[in-house]
Amino acid sequence: MAETELDLASDAADLTARLVDFPSESGNEKPLADAIEAALRTLPHLTVDRHGNNVVARTHLGRPERVVLAGHIDTVPIAGNVPSRLDEEGVLWGCGTCDMKSGVAVQLRIAATVPEPNRDLTFVFYDNEEVDARLNGLGHVAEAHPDWLAGDFAVLLEPSDGEVEGGCQGTLRVKLRTTGERAHSARSWMGANAIHAAAPILERLAAYEPRRPVIDGLEYHEGLNAVAVEGGVAGNVIPDACTVTVNFRYAPDRSEEEAVAHVREVFEGCPIDEFVIDDHSPGALPGLSHPAARAFIEAVGGVARPKFGWTDVSRFSALGVPAVNYGPGNPLLAHKRDERVLASKIPDAERRLREWLTG
Amino acid sequence: MAETELDLASDAADLTARLVDFPSESGNEKPLADAIEAALRTLPHLTVDRHGNNVVARTHLGRPERVVLAGHIDTVPIAGNVPSRLDEEGVLWGCGTCDMKSGVAVQLRIAATVPEPNRDLTFVFYDNEEVDARLNGLGHVAEAHPDWLAGDFAVLLEPSDGEVEGGCQGTLRVKLRTTGERAHSARSWMGANAIHAAAPILERLAAYEPRRPVIDGLEYHEGLNAVAVEGGVAGNVIPDACTVTVNFRYAPDRSEEEAVAHVREVFEGCPIDEFVIDDHSPGALPGLSHPAARAFIEAVGGVARPKFGWTDVSRFSALGVPAVNYGPGNPLLAHKRDERVLASKIPDAERRLREWLTG
Repeated sequence: MAETELDLASDAADLTARLVDFPSESGNEKPLADAIEAALRTLPHLTVDRHGNNVVARTHLGRPERVVLAGHIDTVPIAGNVPSRLDEEGVLWGCGTCDMKSGVAVQLRIAATVPEPNRDLTFVFYDNEEVDARLNGLGHVAEAHPDWLAGDFAVLLEPSDGEVEGGCQGTLRVKLRTTGERAHSARSWMGANAIHAAAPILERLAAYEPRRPVIDGLEYHEGLNAVAVEGGVAGNVIPDACTVTVNFRYAPDRSEEEAVAHVREVFEGCPIDEFVIDDHSPGALPGLSHPAARAFIEAVGGVARPKFGWTDVSRFSALGVPAVNYGPGNPLLAHKRDERVLASKIPDAERRLREWLTG
Repeated sequence: MAETELDLASDAADLTARLVDFPSESGNEKPLADAIEAALRTLPHLTVDRHGNNVVARTHLGRPERVVLAGHIDTVPIAGNVPSRLDEEGVLWGCGTCDMKSGVAVQLRIAATVPEPNRDLTFVFYDNEEVDARLNGLGHVAEAHPDWLAGDFAVLLEPSDGEVEGGCQGTLRVKLRTTGERAHSARSWMGANAIHAAAPILERLAAYEPRRPVIDGLEYHEGLNAVAVEGGVAGNVIPDACTVTVNFRYAPDRSEEEAVAHVREVFEGCPIDEFVIDDHSPGALPGLSHPAARAFIEAVGGVARPKFGWTDVSRFSALGVPAVNYGPGNPLLAHKRDERVLASKIPDAERRLREWLTG
């Protein structure tokens, strides 16, 4: 037991180093989940629940608002960058320092040191965030125990460089197929060229003007792009099929249905024989007008900015819980061999959250 | 020796059956080349030369014109369709019946039975026509002994259903590459989409109006087509490269240089970063205005038609020898498991050629 014990009384940066030295690549989170569960069970003000390698701890103080602090405990594969190393300039290096064991350390420190928060608190530690969405632990908890995730506002402690990232854009991937008729290219007029039929699709994409809507004060930026194109049978054959795969990244003021309808509208009149939705994850509204969110932004002193990429805040949004990202690391350093975090940023984030939850 | 001997006194259809029963898939032509050489060497009016498994036999009568009769002796792989079989309706079945041992039988019959032709004759029997162009025996002879192929007019006895197919179109394949800059598709404005950059290329192709020039009375039909398109990195990445492969089939009044210049002109102004010639074989003029060709068409009573696909007549054209295809089989039956030829067409072709060469 001693070997897996986490000392929640230690400084947030030291605790981050300890968590980094506790490997937990996606799919191998059990030892760390066990250690987190054991540490949380020593705290009498929390009830602790577990589903697989996902651990949820809650206060039950009867406060009028409930806030969720969530973080994933898995990392991408270790690339010779564990154990962690603190250099002379106060930078902590190692796999997960940024994404996102520093955030998990902040969660654990708040859990241990704020026994009487001004809002009821729910701490969520989940697995498999870095792999296929179907394996995502937060999704599994949302499905099996949605009540565990209930709340008025959620903060995901993903690296955001200490700024608040509100909501997230949706992402829709569609395969657009054109068809034709094969023929020998020496007698091309005997066939119909499916690649030529795709010309208007590429024209519409090249001419597309993306929206930049402002929602809750944040300016989003949509995008509609071909991410793949494929067609051709042989060097002397008129091709009978061509597929253009498009990815629509859309602002969270569109629903899933509206996003699909928009893509259909963009390509209306193009000779598309199949319109296949390949992948779809809705966006999430920033919810920054909620009082808890306003107080949070004020407390952390951050400037809210929009989140363009898709994140797990969308899962909270789907449960009716507005959510933001807020964590100490620089997101551009995530998943890199030279992943690192400025150690002083970790207790700094902890302090700001504590101010919000005790002020 | 008896086993490999060919009886050139037999009927052309019987001789075709004998040749079909003498397997000679590409790369395995030596026994048949040996038998052909041995048979030709019994004919005192011919000199015989050999280069690899290619056999060339010539008359030297001092005639003002020289005609080349050429045919390949290899076949595609046998598909359970050897030995040959003559059915009750006079159809000869088997690998090579159509493409082109019936034509080779006609060559051998003319060689054996026309000792004093009105034009000097050159008979060419070559290997590896059905495989990679670099292995083609006619090409090897053209390179090593171009004088063996000298002449005023050439007839390739490829299956053409008893009609004269004049000249052939050229074929040029070019890869057109566009480039861009990768970015995460959630922040597409940080990159540049190479697939979108290919839109004007497909537009030009879709709008292209091919020429149908008339040359020596034959109407050719050009074509410019995408035969492949490829681009994409991953479902969430703005692609930085896209390649459209186009195939230009062009009439024989364009030179190779003119064909390349035309393709460059069609795509002028498109954002193409690389223009790579992937493959190029020039066309061949029909040469039907040559007196020997006119007399030939008259003698065979055929209607000359253009050859759209690329054939070995182009190799003769490159040597300055106008050439046509003329043979007994239906070209649509070539390379098929149920390959066949109407046996009566074989002595019929032989008779027409004899009339032309003795009239």
